[in-house]
Amino acid sequence: MTTQRARRPGPSVRTRVVEHTDAAPLEREDRLITEEPLEIRVRTAALPARRAWVTMRTPGHDFELAAGWLVNEGLATADALAQVAYCTDTDLAPEQEFNVVTVTLAGTTADLPHRHVAASAGSSACGVCGKDSVADALSTRAAAPWPGSRPAPEVVRRLPESLRERQTLFARTGGVHAAGLADADGTMLVVREDVGRHNAVDKVVGARVLAGDPPAAACLVLSGRVGFELVQKAAASGIGSIVAVGAPTSLAARLADEAGIDLWGFTSPGRSVRYS
Amino acid sequence: MTTQRARRPGPSVRTRVVEHTDAAPLEREDRLITEEPLEIRVRTAALPARRAWVTMRTPGHDFELAAGWLVNEGLATADALAQVAYCTDTDLAPEQEFNVVTVTLAGTTADLPHRHVAASAGSSACGVCGKDSVADALSTRAAAPWPGSRPAPEVVRRLPESLRERQTLFARTGGVHAAGLADADGTMLVVREDVGRHNAVDKVVGARVLAGDPPAAACLVLSGRVGFELVQKAAASGIGSIVAVGAPTSLAARLADEAGIDLWGFTSPGRSVRYS
Repeated sequence: MTTQRARRPGPSVRTRVVEHTDAAPLEREDRLITEEPLEIRVRTAALPARRAWVTMRTPGHDFELAAGWLVNEGLATADALAQVAYCTDTDLAPEQEFNVVTVTLAGTTADLPHRHVAASAGSSACGVCGKDSVADALSTRAAAPWPGSRPAPEVVRRLPESLRERQTLFARTGGVHAAGLADADGTMLVVREDVGRHNAVDKVVGARVLAGDPPAAACLVLSGRVGFELVQKAAASGIGSIVAVGAPTSLAARLADEAGIDLWGFTSPGRSVRYS
Repeated sequence: MTTQRARRPGPSVRTRVVEHTDAAPLEREDRLITEEPLEIRVRTAALPARRAWVTMRTPGHDFELAAGWLVNEGLATADALAQVAYCTDTDLAPEQEFNVVTVTLAGTTADLPHRHVAASAGSSACGVCGKDSVADALSTRAAAPWPGSRPAPEVVRRLPESLRERQTLFARTGGVHAAGLADADGTMLVVREDVGRHNAVDKVVGARVLAGDPPAAACLVLSGRVGFELVQKAAASGIGSIVAVGAPTSLAARLADEAGIDLWGFTSPGRSVRYS
């Protein structure tokens, strides 16, 4: 074993590429967005840390990602997050040190939350149609919808541009999505970028939670499309409006409608289309 | 209980929207890409069906999705797929009938495969850094790389356009990714669209497998970006080249390099950038 000091991975890395056009191939330097796994562990004072999830993410704002993921998945309330820290287990190799985050939950709980995915025998009670998925999301994960005002159509159309101006990693790598939280006047409260669209949404909500603010906001702004799971996250944290550059899916529109969230797609300075 | 006949969901649905521009708001009809959950179950002659995974997908080519997912995740070989069918359990409500697919595996196996995600106590052996992830993908999931020729740079640059011409759902909804398999001359063998980029890749590989062809092909063409998991799928089925319209991530480039896959990003008729 070496005692090599861990180097925290940056959000982008240099690489050599060969560009092919009609002219002769050109070797040059390029920048790639960093993708690394992050393991989220959960513990309490009484229960030892257990793996709750592993996601491929862009390093940076990892505590926010862990906190926001727990809140957006309906696995913990903001109040229950007592501590978030990089794991200091001695069994971790140096290069893994910044890829494991442990969240300590306050209070006592009989079981630690983790992401359920598979394994149990399927039954009709598990929800394998859109209607079940929507009902399930509303019954187990919906917070009270944003009580204040929400951005008006003119404000909505300005939001993606305002997000884009803050997408510094996208400008450098072209390979990364972004999410932002904005108030009803269109002021951007926080913006985060990540290779995973879902991670970016967890990071902005986690940023609010760790700053001591409530997770909710008037508006969630997305650089891409809107699927069911993103609306599910927004419903869990009490978002009022979702404004996306891309298209929503059928189930995203249905859930937004039932959760009382304003859903806007294909948004640019010239137009925006309202789906709920 | 009603005895209502199940209606197979289509790949897109009609909806009413309100479009906001500088002019007065305009109510009109629009089309959304359909997103519905699909549960994949696996069984053998001796072992009863068990849930292996649930994914949000666009209905259509569901058998291909189930078959391709098993092969691309390294959970079954193409030879082992004895039967793929919609589930006929009497406990399923009509609207769930086309959202559950059961794959019967030939031969005997001690345990049925399913997607592992969480729950076990984390340890350094689980691989939570990029180096571990790459080593793990190569040791457990890499097939022999494509033995024949791969598309030359001039052919590579034509592939996304050729894919785009076949993206009929994208043309209708604007909210869906596509994957295609092509030979070294650029002839498109199969194209599939899905709300999930990963599902589209599973569908094209599943299409080959169910047609009795080997899952491998000279080239995988992608309408979006290239993350680690997509290269992992390509490595599992023996793809030679990956040609993407968008950017690759750091870990995608590293795995492609080590798996011997040609990786092309930012591909358009005018240029393509080679990353491995």
